[in-house]
Amino acid sequence: MKYIIGVDLGGTNLRIGLFNQNIRLIDKRVFSTQRFKDKEDLIEGIIQSIKNIIKDNALKGVDILGIGLGLPGPVEWKKQIVYFFPNIKGWHNVKLGKILKKRLKINIFMDNDANLICLAESRMGVAKGYRNLVCITLGTGVGGGLIIENKLYRGTNSVAGEIGHLPISQDGPICGCGAKGCLESYVGNLRIMREAKRIFKKDISLEELSRLAKLNNKKAIKIWRKTGEILGIALAGVVNLLNPQAIVIAGGVSNAGEVLFKSIRETIRKRAMPIQARQVKILSSRLKNDSGIIGAALLVKMEVKKC
Amino acid sequence: MKYIIGVDLGGTNLRIGLFNQNIRLIDKRVFSTQRFKDKEDLIEGIIQSIKNIIKDNALKGVDILGIGLGLPGPVEWKKQIVYFFPNIKGWHNVKLGKILKKRLKINIFMDNDANLICLAESRMGVAKGYRNLVCITLGTGVGGGLIIENKLYRGTNSVAGEIGHLPISQDGPICGCGAKGCLESYVGNLRIMREAKRIFKKDISLEELSRLAKLNNKKAIKIWRKTGEILGIALAGVVNLLNPQAIVIAGGVSNAGEVLFKSIRETIRKRAMPIQARQVKILSSRLKNDSGIIGAALLVKMEVKKC
Repeated sequence: MKYIIGVDLGGTNLRIGLFNQNIRLIDKRVFSTQRFKDKEDLIEGIIQSIKNIIKDNALKGVDILGIGLGLPGPVEWKKQIVYFFPNIKGWHNVKLGKILKKRLKINIFMDNDANLICLAESRMGVAKGYRNLVCITLGTGVGGGLIIENKLYRGTNSVAGEIGHLPISQDGPICGCGAKGCLESYVGNLRIMREAKRIFKKDISLEELSRLAKLNNKKAIKIWRKTGEILGIALAGVVNLLNPQAIVIAGGVSNAGEVLFKSIRETIRKRAMPIQARQVKILSSRLKNDSGIIGAALLVKMEVKKC
Repeated sequence: MKYIIGVDLGGTNLRIGLFNQNIRLIDKRVFSTQRFKDKEDLIEGIIQSIKNIIKDNALKGVDILGIGLGLPGPVEWKKQIVYFFPNIKGWHNVKLGKILKKRLKINIFMDNDANLICLAESRMGVAKGYRNLVCITLGTGVGGGLIIENKLYRGTNSVAGEIGHLPISQDGPICGCGAKGCLESYVGNLRIMREAKRIFKKDISLEELSRLAKLNNKKAIKIWRKTGEILGIALAGVVNLLNPQAIVIAGGVSNAGEVLFKSIRETIRKRAMPIQARQVKILSSRLKNDSGIIGAALLVKMEVKKC
């Protein structure tokens, strides 16, 4: 029996999972990304955590079929180069694949995290078996992945899927990407929390805001409804353009639950074209926090098979 | 030698072309769509024109490999059903394939016109050989087609590609589709002409508006620049989402030429994400008015091969 390691690097957490070849999770570790002080330290942290999870399970490098990494930014997945990370400083055109391969002597595979979440949900999650699928990840950044005709679609430079950077306004706030009116600048974590602070006159976490909405707090409900409406407008465009079977909504913000999903569904029904709107299912991620490591492990399994 | 017939039905013209198997155009007819008074009359017109082009070229039905039709609205291409035509009245869930097959005894193939224009440009036009391609058709309606990994992507109900119905504003004018703020309601023919009338204080055709811009008329230039900017905003979103190699711009409005294309290119460079924006080429349709009939003939050739 061989094993697979799936790594999910996020702005908040670094997750590492050990899987068997059937993508059954055997062991998992979670670290705070903040504890690594710079790029070198983070790379070293990834390497040591991988070594540890192998050793602690009484395995050796030769027992590992490959290591898959889901990364929080645009990645040239074939050349294994990180273009940059919008929310982790110091990463620019980093040949991460080469670095890890040299140190670990294990085959490395990598992709953008939203792509791998989309892959995981389409193979083992809520959208299992759907041939045409869009996945949107809601966090500090708003990412996305596309399954087209049952395959992960990466585009020409492997940076397709940037749903967070669909313009929903000709002007609007300046986004981190430099453009104006991007979806992300309306529904990213920071924007929602800023809006919550304005309305509640104090700092309030997203978890608290979700809890309040479930307790029927009108102000909290209003914030989630508005967030759902804006998401629905952008997703109506995606539905018109790609006519997918389903959209999977993942990431922390999606934990707001029914108040958010109802607003998204209603807006899509109202604003997308009737044939497309009738078809599309709006689903909540099933694999939740493990979707990234599962997707990374699936990537290894898929790519090793091709070798 | 066998032959193929390509039909391009538009709100303005009905075009019929006779091709050989290498998709070389042998004969072509153009009729005004307005001369047909209703759905039955239009179907009869299509049938008679096909019969005539066959007869006039001393051919028989058995010499025709198939008839391809590009249609101005959403089409279930496999079941050969027209869902509806936004700009021709009286068409709702019409089993056009069955009707034509019964009358003509020739194999029928059909698809949305923008899909077939995209196919034509990707196989024989300005985007020949591009694997990931977006085509936008600018006319009374704003349509689109997608080539993904070298294949026409039609989506779940074969209605993908509706670029004209990407929202670029949360509010904005009500679109023909029922939604608000769709691209089409900012850059469709009627909207441009209404804007021109407001500025020039008289009715002015798009051809005239293009001519004036080429003569350096400031007002005309301003209208085309603004049109290009709005198109650029929506297309920046498409570029971020699909990371295509190229976008082909087709349809009457694209004849405005460099003043329009420069504005589109500048806006995409400014508003799309850098990796995607660096890659994408913004191209003008090469096959122009013949792109629809060529695409329809290509569809026949592709599908017959599969049989």
